[in-house]
Amino acid sequence: MDHEKLADEYIRKEIEVLQSLDRKSIAKALDKLTEAWENERDIYIFGNGGSSATASHFENDFNKGVSEPLEKKFRFHCLNDNMSTVMAVANDLGFEEVFRFQLVNRVKKDDIIMAISGSGNSKNVLNAVEYAKERGAYIIGITGYNGGKLMGLSDLNLHADINSMQITEDIHMMFDHLMMSVLYKTLCGKDHMQA
Amino acid sequence: MDHEKLADEYIRKEIEVLQSLDRKSIAKALDKLTEAWENERDIYIFGNGGSSATASHFENDFNKGVSEPLEKKFRFHCLNDNMSTVMAVANDLGFEEVFRFQLVNRVKKDDIIMAISGSGNSKNVLNAVEYAKERGAYIIGITGYNGGKLMGLSDLNLHADINSMQITEDIHMMFDHLMMSVLYKTLCGKDHMQA
Amino acid sequence: MDHEKLADEYIRKEIEVLQSLDRKSIAKALDKLTEAWENERDIYIFGNGGSSATASHFENDFNKGVSEPLEKKFRFHCLNDNMSTVMAVANDLGFEEVFRFQLVNRVKKDDIIMAISGSGNSKNVLNAVEYAKERGAYIIGITGYNGGKLMGLSDLNLHADINSMQITEDIHMMFDHLMMSVLYKTLCGKDHMQA
Amino acid sequence: MDHEKLADEYIRKEIEVLQSLDRKSIAKALDKLTEAWENERDIYIFGNGGSSATASHFENDFNKGVSEPLEKKFRFHCLNDNMSTVMAVANDLGFEEVFRFQLVNRVKKDDIIMAISGSGNSKNVLNAVEYAKERGAYIIGITGYNGGKLMGLSDLNLHADINSMQITEDIHMMFDHLMMSVLYKTLCGKDHMQA
Repeated sequence: MDHEKLADEYIRKEIEVLQSLDRKSIAKALDKLTEAWENERDIYIFGNGGSSATASHFENDFNKGVSEPLEKKFRFHCLNDNMSTVMAVANDLGFEEVFRFQLVNRVKKDDIIMAISGSGNSKNVLNAVEYAKERGAYIIGITGYNGGKLMGLSDLNLHADINSMQITEDIHMMFDHLMMSVLYKTLCGKDHMQA
Repeated sequence: MDHEKLADEYIRKEIEVLQSLDRKSIAKALDKLTEAWENERDIYIFGNGGSSATASHFENDFNKGVSEPLEKKFRFHCLNDNMSTVMAVANDLGFEEVFRFQLVNRVKKDDIIMAISGSGNSKNVLNAVEYAKERGAYIIGITGYNGGKLMGLSDLNLHADINSMQITEDIHMMFDHLMMSVLYKTLCGKDHMQA
Repeated sequence: MDHEKLADEYIRKEIEVLQSLDRKSIAKALDKLTEAWENERDIYIFGNGGSSATASHFENDFNKGVSEPLEKKFRFHCLNDNMSTVMAVANDLGFEEVFRFQLVNRVKKDDIIMAISGSGNSKNVLNAVEYAKERGAYIIGITGYNGGKLMGLSDLNLHADINSMQITEDIHMMFDHLMMSVLYKTLCGKDHMQA
Repeated sequence: MDHEKLADEYIRKEIEVLQSLDRKSIAKALDKLTEAWENERDIYIFGNGGSSATASHFENDFNKGVSEPLEKKFRFHCLNDNMSTVMAVANDLGFEEVFRFQLVNRVKKDDIIMAISGSGNSKNVLNAVEYAKERGAYIIGITGYNGGKLMGLSDLNLHADINSMQITEDIHMMFDHLMMSVLYKTLCGKDHMQA
């Protein structure tokens, strides 16, 4: 098959999804992250499969990237970073507990949960979200497809409206860098575009 | 400042870069990866900062994602996955050796190197690329900005023509998912878009 | 309770277990690893909970530590290092498949499997071992307690004869460093004890 | 050379070092960790090379292991868990800053630092310790050889008095499991030895 043509189709579809994104919800997420930073809230982020890498990348972009020139620091905690903990919880208590376990008696009222699930239906993600919600945390669901159950549970959705896990994950990565770039400007006075 | 307006600007810029991408070089990378898969070549991938997460995500998308339904498997090796090794090499031999060290007397003629560097000038990335080149590996440089020295050293470039590290990293993630989706179709007969 | 007394009891128990270790099986593991190195066999290592960290530590001690001064390199592959892959397999196929998946159509006859399971009964470890055994790999079981099912499946056992997960994990870490130190001497001509 | 004899020599040396350990300093570390748990202090742990894996293993043994049955949780933070952050700091600011960076404006008075360095002289470990000390944190140095500069900077030392990096790292792993086992008893009322 024609690699060039298939590549072009993917890029066109990606652009369509980018155009369709709800700017208002992104702006609201930026408001919440700014508020969380001001009030030194803990922000927990996690996901399955490649979203593990996305979650880990997010922590770096906020705890190191945006925070570097700031006195006050972002307090992201990626729940996909300690392999021993993930493997211990999954082995002892079940894979569906790997994220909830790490939140129990740690997540507090007004902390932020950034829950990544392309389908919106991963059991371990939903379990953690339900627990955090009961504790009074603010839930940002990061989804694709039709948003699944996560969309309904979330206070705010960053959603890629597309039935493709790959484009969904691209958009999730872009949510990270877009928000990082905007806060880099609003909080640090720097432009991500360099002359 | 206006979060919605800044978000919109970022997305517009991202779309511009997507439109500008050289489809021919992506197609050629797909040809090379297909050939590497057929001939069971080792494929080494690595980068700094958030590109660590990108490299790790790539390994999963090919070794698990595309490979799952295939008899023959992709052989990606992410050099950002073993923290002890990275910290041992950096501490004993210097941070600029962390990737080269992991290739010495391992990388072979016709293996593939996927070297990620937004600036194209990270010393540890360049050192590894120079070593692998001498050994006869095929170099795919994954770059942004003006491509830096990496662009000149590479046999093929996957390039994001933009002076923003954030948009560069978005595009790099998209290269992964685009190539995964195309090979998912050409090798596995499956469509990334689901009905 | 008395911290000093409890600390002393733990150390005494640790010493008892060290004295009881079967030196002959350690020597045989060293023979096998030496042979695997000579013949450039792949060596896969994995475990649950804290044994994830042990497996990752092992890879560094052989691929970097012992291999550094050698022309020929050890070829350890820790199956606990790519979080995205572990999370993708667990989420899509089940946690009991996380290690087997990474071996399918990769592990070859005469490769070495180093399977760590304190209880000897972790389902995901057993699944991977059974698969590798069918493919003709040589199985080194690294166990504690009564060795569980893993002991029966293994060609060779590195066993800590104690009903404590903590002392078991200590001994597993020592198996790594002991073997590293011995091979450092026999293969590299260097002494781990420095003047 | 004789693998069995060399294995036996290593084990004998390990036992000697175990016998020589200062029980009083271990007891004092247990007092401090108990106090840190009671007062919900943050505990930061980090190291180079294989000590990365040890630090990661420690976090799991306290945040999951000991904390599981407790209402109040241990608050360990391993600074070797987010590869993107380590690679970003090392690439942008220098490898000697990877740990200090993660503590800046985060570590607080009376937090605990558990700094692992076999030689006691790793620059990146010392930089982090000096910073944390100025901020009023309590420093537990985890060392081998002659303790290096870290020993002098620490409020308390967990020391393996031996010129071998391998035995040093074994003892460090044992410090983890010993302390976990003792606190499992004193805080959770459970015995690590199972009938």
